[in-house]
Amino acid sequence: MTAAKDPWLLTPGPLTTSAATKEAMLHDWGSRDAQFIETNARVLRRLLDIANAADTHVCVPLQGSGTFTVEAALGTLIPPRDANKDAKALVLINGAYGKRMAQILDYAGRDHDVLETPEDTPPNLNDLEAALKSDSAITHVVAVYCETTAGILNPIEDIARITAENQRRLIIDAMSAFGALPFDASAIPFDGMMASSNKCLEGVPGMGFAILRRAALEQCQGNAHALSLDLYDQWRAMEKNGQWRFTPPTHVINAFDAALDQFDAEGGAAGRHARYAANCKILVDGMRGLGFETLLADEVQAPIIVTFKMPADPKFDFQAFYDALGSRGYVIYPGKLTVAPSFRIGCIGQLGESEMKGALEAIAEVMEEMGVESGAP
Amino acid sequence: MTAAKDPWLLTPGPLTTSAATKEAMLHDWGSRDAQFIETNARVLRRLLDIANAADTHVCVPLQGSGTFTVEAALGTLIPPRDANKDAKALVLINGAYGKRMAQILDYAGRDHDVLETPEDTPPNLNDLEAALKSDSAITHVVAVYCETTAGILNPIEDIARITAENQRRLIIDAMSAFGALPFDASAIPFDGMMASSNKCLEGVPGMGFAILRRAALEQCQGNAHALSLDLYDQWRAMEKNGQWRFTPPTHVINAFDAALDQFDAEGGAAGRHARYAANCKILVDGMRGLGFETLLADEVQAPIIVTFKMPADPKFDFQAFYDALGSRGYVIYPGKLTVAPSFRIGCIGQLGESEMKGALEAIAEVMEEMGVESGAP
Repeated sequence: MTAAKDPWLLTPGPLTTSAATKEAMLHDWGSRDAQFIETNARVLRRLLDIANAADTHVCVPLQGSGTFTVEAALGTLIPPRDANKDAKALVLINGAYGKRMAQILDYAGRDHDVLETPEDTPPNLNDLEAALKSDSAITHVVAVYCETTAGILNPIEDIARITAENQRRLIIDAMSAFGALPFDASAIPFDGMMASSNKCLEGVPGMGFAILRRAALEQCQGNAHALSLDLYDQWRAMEKNGQWRFTPPTHVINAFDAALDQFDAEGGAAGRHARYAANCKILVDGMRGLGFETLLADEVQAPIIVTFKMPADPKFDFQAFYDALGSRGYVIYPGKLTVAPSFRIGCIGQLGESEMKGALEAIAEVMEEMGVESGAP
Repeated sequence: MTAAKDPWLLTPGPLTTSAATKEAMLHDWGSRDAQFIETNARVLRRLLDIANAADTHVCVPLQGSGTFTVEAALGTLIPPRDANKDAKALVLINGAYGKRMAQILDYAGRDHDVLETPEDTPPNLNDLEAALKSDSAITHVVAVYCETTAGILNPIEDIARITAENQRRLIIDAMSAFGALPFDASAIPFDGMMASSNKCLEGVPGMGFAILRRAALEQCQGNAHALSLDLYDQWRAMEKNGQWRFTPPTHVINAFDAALDQFDAEGGAAGRHARYAANCKILVDGMRGLGFETLLADEVQAPIIVTFKMPADPKFDFQAFYDALGSRGYVIYPGKLTVAPSFRIGCIGQLGESEMKGALEAIAEVMEEMGVESGAP
């Protein structure tokens, strides 16, 4: 009945959750019953408070993975090409999640341009400013706060400032950031911010949520390209009776509520950031001690997930490395980079000093078994 | 740690699940790890086998509620208006879920007609045949097997036969049917069938699945109106590496696998149908004994959820009735009918004779407290 023998998930999610979070799922709830409606409202209120956005924004949850919420927010906030609302998005891309947002806009038939930098390089702020000044058709800037692809920290406050100074609207994929990296609606003007239950807030996967500027959302009726993904409709329905339009993932929401209790007890985003930053430092220092190199410069490394370059030693075989770590109880993550062969190790979830040190010990053991003297690329 | 004190959910889902199903969620899994991939493949194989469809069809799961899968299947199987593929759907409507499918087709820009009958009346098979003969533009028939709105059993074998005889393709919302009502691909020719984890298969909510004719799905690249809802893309990706494209609801899937163990142990769909039918008979007989009337004639009543007409006695107050039953540990369901005031009581989930009798006792007690002598409408 306990998760004691589960491997530690050093991944960007699904991640290792606490026993209390999982045990919160040992019940059943009617989705139209008062108790569930109250829990749901409490979760949404807590999420708004974390973003310091309760006065200006609303929180709308959605079934599915984070990508479902990203797609829903883009489709709801950005009008379609044929709506005569003159909308065009500029997507800042430096990884798979930025690319995915551009792909979503293709599916949904939304006009958009992209501004792309390599996976190890933050968006160029001068280029952003120049694009906004030169193309008056652009109405929305779409950015990723922490790109999980390389683990890079994008300068979201600067992006938000430039977007606001140029009177454009900002939509932020904060999936791998919200709950650990600073996020305050008074410092980051935005129309939409999307995240999920199972990243830095450490719930189980199965739902996302969008924090949406109320004044913007009110103009979005009829925009969405899919009924299931219509956040305007989801919001209006929930305002009426507190219920989800379609069957909610009741167990996931109750686990999320429990995870938010633990988030509060840890001191909110500041406390969580401190633990993740400590995890990240142990990991990076330890890996460098074994010869590995990080893809990113330290100043753009978010304490969420770290990309390591693949070792040059021909005796290093990634699948064998992955499997041997797995059998020692540590699950790591393959790379997703186009710029270089790599793998990733996450710092988030219910992990602390002993798990990070344990992972490093296991890595050292496996390297020795493989006869790999150094992780140098 | 147990669900012993949870109320019994006499609802169409989320429903009461077993302790074993919930306890299967007391772990964490990496979504790209071999163990999870194996569980996922096993679940999909089991679902195909239940439909006797492994030779002709594939099973594609999707995050979210059942409606997400319904929308995804419609959008994937039926090409858009501008695709020059000459597709047009005929939607058979006798309740909210048929209407919702027509609404989805509106969102997605798919040509469609509807054939509507009242919520207590199955589709007219002569009208279906006439529509198919008179409108050669119709390519797909879209039907609901058991309409949860009234709980009506639609004649899906006849609908399938007429559709096939007229060389059209059939898409079935089998949400409140699959796993309890007969469903055999050799008797019911269909291109698409959609259901979810938390109806008659008694998992927890958070995912749906579509069983899709492989030869049809192969033609569906580029059809879907949303990336998240693209079942062609989800299928192709999963064929490649066994993984979901986007974060899967790992806990929900593992609970589903456990629920399928119990489904097998109960004797599959036949065993489950027998229990639900017994539940339904106890419920209907007992309620009639208290003066209540069912909306539906017995011959079209599916043993899934029963709609009762609202009692005429002015002392009967539905909210008070609902709350008093809730405080006794029985959650029922409001009505969703347009034809008459009503409420609903479900027969599905981990409920048997003692729970159904307990609910009836509670109903009798509450009526006496309210001073309502008869449930007659």
